[in-house]
Amino acid sequence: MAAELTAHQLIAQHRPTLDHALETIRTRAYWSPHPEHPKAYGENGSLGMAEGKAAFDALLGTRLDLGQPGTDDWVGGEVSPYGIDLGVTYPHADIDTLLPAMRAGQRAWRDAGAEMRAVVCLEILKRISDRTHEFAHAVMHTSGQAFMMAFQAGGPHAQDRGLEAVAYAYVEQVRTPDNAEWTKPQGKRDPLALTKQFTPVPRGIALVIGCNTFPTWNGYPGLFASLATGNAVLVKPHPRAVLPLALTVQVARQVLAEAGFDPNLVALAAERPEEGIAKTLAVRPEIRIIDYTGSTAFGDWLENNARQAQVYTEKSGVNTVIVESTDNYKGMLSNLAFSLSLYSGQMCTTPQNLLIPRDGVRTEEGHKSYDEVVSDLAKSVAGLLGDDARANALLGAIVNPDVKARLEAAAGLGEVALPSQEISNPEFPDAVVRTPLIVKLDGARKYWERADDEAAYMSECFGPVSFAVAVDSVADAVELLRRTVRDKGAMTVGAYTTDTEVEQAVQEACLEEAAQLSLNLTGGVYVNQTAAFSDFHGSGGNPAANSALCDGAFVANRFRVVEVRREA
Amino acid sequence: MAAELTAHQLIAQHRPTLDHALETIRTRAYWSPHPEHPKAYGENGSLGMAEGKAAFDALLGTRLDLGQPGTDDWVGGEVSPYGIDLGVTYPHADIDTLLPAMRAGQRAWRDAGAEMRAVVCLEILKRISDRTHEFAHAVMHTSGQAFMMAFQAGGPHAQDRGLEAVAYAYVEQVRTPDNAEWTKPQGKRDPLALTKQFTPVPRGIALVIGCNTFPTWNGYPGLFASLATGNAVLVKPHPRAVLPLALTVQVARQVLAEAGFDPNLVALAAERPEEGIAKTLAVRPEIRIIDYTGSTAFGDWLENNARQAQVYTEKSGVNTVIVESTDNYKGMLSNLAFSLSLYSGQMCTTPQNLLIPRDGVRTEEGHKSYDEVVSDLAKSVAGLLGDDARANALLGAIVNPDVKARLEAAAGLGEVALPSQEISNPEFPDAVVRTPLIVKLDGARKYWERADDEAAYMSECFGPVSFAVAVDSVADAVELLRRTVRDKGAMTVGAYTTDTEVEQAVQEACLEEAAQLSLNLTGGVYVNQTAAFSDFHGSGGNPAANSALCDGAFVANRFRVVEVRREA
Repeated sequence: MAAELTAHQLIAQHRPTLDHALETIRTRAYWSPHPEHPKAYGENGSLGMAEGKAAFDALLGTRLDLGQPGTDDWVGGEVSPYGIDLGVTYPHADIDTLLPAMRAGQRAWRDAGAEMRAVVCLEILKRISDRTHEFAHAVMHTSGQAFMMAFQAGGPHAQDRGLEAVAYAYVEQVRTPDNAEWTKPQGKRDPLALTKQFTPVPRGIALVIGCNTFPTWNGYPGLFASLATGNAVLVKPHPRAVLPLALTVQVARQVLAEAGFDPNLVALAAERPEEGIAKTLAVRPEIRIIDYTGSTAFGDWLENNARQAQVYTEKSGVNTVIVESTDNYKGMLSNLAFSLSLYSGQMCTTPQNLLIPRDGVRTEEGHKSYDEVVSDLAKSVAGLLGDDARANALLGAIVNPDVKARLEAAAGLGEVALPSQEISNPEFPDAVVRTPLIVKLDGARKYWERADDEAAYMSECFGPVSFAVAVDSVADAVELLRRTVRDKGAMTVGAYTTDTEVEQAVQEACLEEAAQLSLNLTGGVYVNQTAAFSDFHGSGGNPAANSALCDGAFVANRFRVVEVRREA
Repeated sequence: MAAELTAHQLIAQHRPTLDHALETIRTRAYWSPHPEHPKAYGENGSLGMAEGKAAFDALLGTRLDLGQPGTDDWVGGEVSPYGIDLGVTYPHADIDTLLPAMRAGQRAWRDAGAEMRAVVCLEILKRISDRTHEFAHAVMHTSGQAFMMAFQAGGPHAQDRGLEAVAYAYVEQVRTPDNAEWTKPQGKRDPLALTKQFTPVPRGIALVIGCNTFPTWNGYPGLFASLATGNAVLVKPHPRAVLPLALTVQVARQVLAEAGFDPNLVALAAERPEEGIAKTLAVRPEIRIIDYTGSTAFGDWLENNARQAQVYTEKSGVNTVIVESTDNYKGMLSNLAFSLSLYSGQMCTTPQNLLIPRDGVRTEEGHKSYDEVVSDLAKSVAGLLGDDARANALLGAIVNPDVKARLEAAAGLGEVALPSQEISNPEFPDAVVRTPLIVKLDGARKYWERADDEAAYMSECFGPVSFAVAVDSVADAVELLRRTVRDKGAMTVGAYTTDTEVEQAVQEACLEEAAQLSLNLTGGVYVNQTAAFSDFHGSGGNPAANSALCDGAFVANRFRVVEVRREA
């Protein structure tokens, strides 16, 4: 069978993009090949706004047949957080048939080499990019993100993270040459001479366990890192967010086949309600790599039980912002208000604990008491979300009933500084839309005297809930930050201070506890956003995640190098 | 306190060596800055042969005071496999005092940056290199290696592996720049602009658990990889092989202090007989990295129990050589004879199972039956070791009574093709010196019908024991190779064949099971030897070891990168 996509074509088309990615992960300057603006699509083969919506609508109520071997049933049942019943069904696999089939194509994929694998991955990303509008609806109607966020985070930003992983995977594999000549002098005798071949070999089948809130953004790094390093990849989506990853698998299978590889190198493992196949798959001997985003409980279970696999987890944490002083009070408030509101706080990077000295904060407008700061922040959030259209565009929908229940319970944890409000969504009346709740808690140094408060701020309360925690001093804030990161983990830390000593103290705490720090953000960059090729997402050095997106450690152990040496 | 060694001096002196190492891990050509010949030492500050011996002799019966905090006792008791009672005592640490003291200097070490850490490590290696003759005796009289092997493997080759680890650690840390400017266009609005700082941060305290047979060679990669990435390093030597690593710790502490760092960044954890402190140390929360070489049982225990740490293990395996055909029969036999004899087979890389077709082997001298091949190999070994002086120089001494007992028991496992013989060592009459044993076993396809044989060749029999396993066909040999690597692991695989198809089949088995393959070695390179900067030691992809010396994966997770970003 002649491949429709030749290596020559693929390399000619994608090598410049790969090279740009390789350069950018070294400079960490801004770059993206994936446009962020919806209007940038619709030409050169990409779907425009209306076409993307039509493509999504055409998927509803259909059976997504991926042509996978071992399909023994069709399963589905996704209901959009916006109220739409997606009605899409997916192949349910007999894993004893599917897993062996996935291994059949691995030798050819391994022998294709690192560059070919990289450009095939880039072709997959290009096809996904062309369908960004379609994916945006799929992400929106599974995660509950508002359209623009689903478009950007689920589209170009996710594609960027996938490309970043391909770049890291490529460079890691080509650090060692394919061949070497080794000649060791032996004084007057003939030298010893060997020829050596080095081949990156995959570990086996990689399992990607997707999450509900960012199926593509959190799924692509592991998927592409594993595929680019020669592994087959089985994608097990969250049962509420199957469609974006099922479409991804579909595209990958098409591209693999067109490039002359076995499409079964990428497959989907959809499941029946309550089937819980992740636990079964995770301990199969064929599964040698696992990427997981989700709860700490299951992440810990995977780390402890899937011992035959390399396990990369992003679990949960408690993110802190220290507010000590600022020279841009309004900028600080509006920046924080946006961070708390974006996607109703349903990001692993959203600040939860705002540590504010009990005796207040210095600002360019003068001293502000703890109560003033909290009330001004509440007003800033209320102002940001005062217009329903804007509120809907920022908040999106509550992703599932658990988040809603947690939000409702959180109002009882302390004095409510900003109550959560219902927002109606005229386009999707069934959507559950809620504004952020801010609760005041006491972060006393003698925290055991305020045990209920401590229990609240030392637990992750995923959703639109944050705690304005009054601390006895900025030193206490730094100490509480350290303790929180060490015990609970953190994906992000923020701080506002104009004091060099405080800045140093916070920075030192973050260096020692391995947490990523954003300082004095008052403009259009938010603590909960990271940019591929430049920012690390997580550190891999605190309990929130055992790996970072993306670095050498994220890719280096997904393959091994086998050496064959002969006398020259 | 002014440092005696400035950054400027150290960089000027060692940067060229570091750069050469960085280049060589990319080309994988031959290179070493550490001379292999004993006569190369004795000038430019290095100890010559007599000086090294005198320095070693002066250590005997002394207390090696490293000036470590928390020293609560002095422990020792090493007896050389050559019969000398070393009589050296070492500090025994109260770990509740020592571990906190080791953390005190970590901030300054972290802030020194990757280049300074690298050149301090190179200065440590330079001082060790200058004392190679002294270290050679220390390695000889703990491992039982013959002097020349102790000199080379324990000296320059170990130093090479340490330098290689420093090079990998350095390049991994500087992949991400210290600083970056990030400017994202916003159409007609002002761009978003951030400045970002990236800092490699250590994980904590690293624990190196040394082995009896190669204390420096197997200890240096982990020690230097961890130190170069900013971690403090606690060295827990094997109780029978303390001295080489204690001297290493001593040198490291001196250099650290002279360079203005806290010497407690490197410390020794010697133990009382049967104290078993590795188990206690391995699960301490301060210990975040563990490097281990030794038994599979304890390696598995570490992997399963030291969950707070990154664990790098080299355990045991069963190494195979397939003998199918050759165009250099004598060269093959003498190469294999040397491999089986070197250090009495007490290398993790020594071949154990020689798989030979039951119906014989094609050679340039015509067909050789299985019996002929085995008997010719036995003769080749006997010839190689026929002279006692040469035998002593190759074999060294049996490292401990367990190996001797295992050797004696192995003679009962099957028909003995070559009995093990005692060799007397005139210089060290108490040394236990033994020639290799070769036992014939049946590797029948229906192995369950020869269960005793299968039990023998499917277990590691560490020491001078190898099995000539008769197989029904070369396809069976390849299948047995696969099964052995998959189930038991292998550090090395060898094969002799002139048949392209057989070569391809063996190579494919090694690629799929991730084993390092040496093909048709008939000259002065042996399957059990690997060269730093060029050969990988182990693959990290089969049960013999979870990591390879040395690659990106060996260093990338010993540190994390913390980012601090601010608006520009």
